[in-house]
Amino acid sequence: MHILVTNDDGVQAPGLLALAQAMRQIGEVTVVAPDRNWSASGHVKTLERPIRVTETVLADGTAAYMSDGAPSDCVALPLLGFLENKIDLVVSGINPFSNIGHDVTYSGTVTAAMEAVIAGVPGIAFSLASETKPSDVRADYGPAGEIAKRVVQTAIEGGLMEGVIMNVNIPYLPVEDMKGFIVTRQGLRVYRDALDRRVDPRGRPYYWIGGESPTGVNEEGTDVGALASGYVSITPLQLDLTHYKAMDVLKGWNWK
Amino acid sequence: MHILVTNDDGVQAPGLLALAQAMRQIGEVTVVAPDRNWSASGHVKTLERPIRVTETVLADGTAAYMSDGAPSDCVALPLLGFLENKIDLVVSGINPFSNIGHDVTYSGTVTAAMEAVIAGVPGIAFSLASETKPSDVRADYGPAGEIAKRVVQTAIEGGLMEGVIMNVNIPYLPVEDMKGFIVTRQGLRVYRDALDRRVDPRGRPYYWIGGESPTGVNEEGTDVGALASGYVSITPLQLDLTHYKAMDVLKGWNWK
Repeated sequence: MHILVTNDDGVQAPGLLALAQAMRQIGEVTVVAPDRNWSASGHVKTLERPIRVTETVLADGTAAYMSDGAPSDCVALPLLGFLENKIDLVVSGINPFSNIGHDVTYSGTVTAAMEAVIAGVPGIAFSLASETKPSDVRADYGPAGEIAKRVVQTAIEGGLMEGVIMNVNIPYLPVEDMKGFIVTRQGLRVYRDALDRRVDPRGRPYYWIGGESPTGVNEEGTDVGALASGYVSITPLQLDLTHYKAMDVLKGWNWK
Repeated sequence: MHILVTNDDGVQAPGLLALAQAMRQIGEVTVVAPDRNWSASGHVKTLERPIRVTETVLADGTAAYMSDGAPSDCVALPLLGFLENKIDLVVSGINPFSNIGHDVTYSGTVTAAMEAVIAGVPGIAFSLASETKPSDVRADYGPAGEIAKRVVQTAIEGGLMEGVIMNVNIPYLPVEDMKGFIVTRQGLRVYRDALDRRVDPRGRPYYWIGGESPTGVNEEGTDVGALASGYVSITPLQLDLTHYKAMDVLKGWNWK
């Protein structure tokens, strides 16, 4: 099994190293990741400029490729033939913060997995809910790496499904304190963004998207609820965004 | 009715002007659009840098704001309070090319409308399938502007729905040659990207995502099929990407 590992935090992020090391216990690993942070960058196809790919090494001395493209480009290029060996699975992460609810379309971690699924290759996104950790401690990706390994092993045994993106969110707990795995639906994020208007030294205004960190509607059966209860959340996502229930309403409108 | 108009092609794109002029026949219009082209840029929330917003004028002499943020930022900022007046509707476009099938998560046009819906404001994305026009003719946005006006009027009469993004694709035809409006589901895009490896003047490789323009699976009831048959395609999209059918399969796996 040949596994492509990428992320949206950049090739030197500790979460990527943990994921690559976990995947090496399962199969052959190639890392192609962005050369910088692309968080909240969304689903990108870089068409207006060419993309560079250069060789680098991870902190454990293993080889990796880094690219000046987006996370989804780091998936597209290998699948289009940058790598000679066929890719059987694309994994993305481990993102330092959860990607739950409406986060999924913003998330470079999730849209990298989406890019794989559009190309017909299974894709799994991994995120660690380290926003719950005390802020003076650097995140420990050890437990999340172990969980990522188990998720991929389970998925391979179960049979990787076409057309399904697996969005995995892992609580920030020691493995033995996690409650187990739970298959969830996408919950509701509550964004608490606020406009922060400032004035530069030359008297001109500029704006930050500021405010508080997002929360979520803590509902049973959702990714938000699972994480809050200490479970590993596994949410299958699809490419079809059609709002089927709304179709009937729209068909009843007086189109002219 | 206060309508916010944005796009992903930049504030000076002719499709934005056509949309702004169409919307002025319905209500009060404010334009906030990117200062450059963000096509295929995805759903972005700019958090790592501040955003500038400056005043400009469109080609018809009307006032507009332009921002160095992404299309979704151009929606977020006004909704977070950059504009004092409450916004009742966000429209995005008119994109020069169709946004159908899997295009929707890449599309700055569609994700701008998505940003509005996440914030609780109705959002409608408009795209013109001008890829079917002879390449030596500049696109005529007149018919698409007229259709955009009719779609918004119909949606207001029907009752703008919460949680529904309307993705509208318009055939490149005179209004009288269009077959009418049809409510569709998201179809299947067929991407024909290919890796184009080149070598720079200093001997270093770089890569274009090249290949042919995407096609689609021309299936009845889909956005792809509707456009191919000369209909205006209206696809309601939702924020919930959960693959509900896959949930049962995943629940049956041997999680440990």
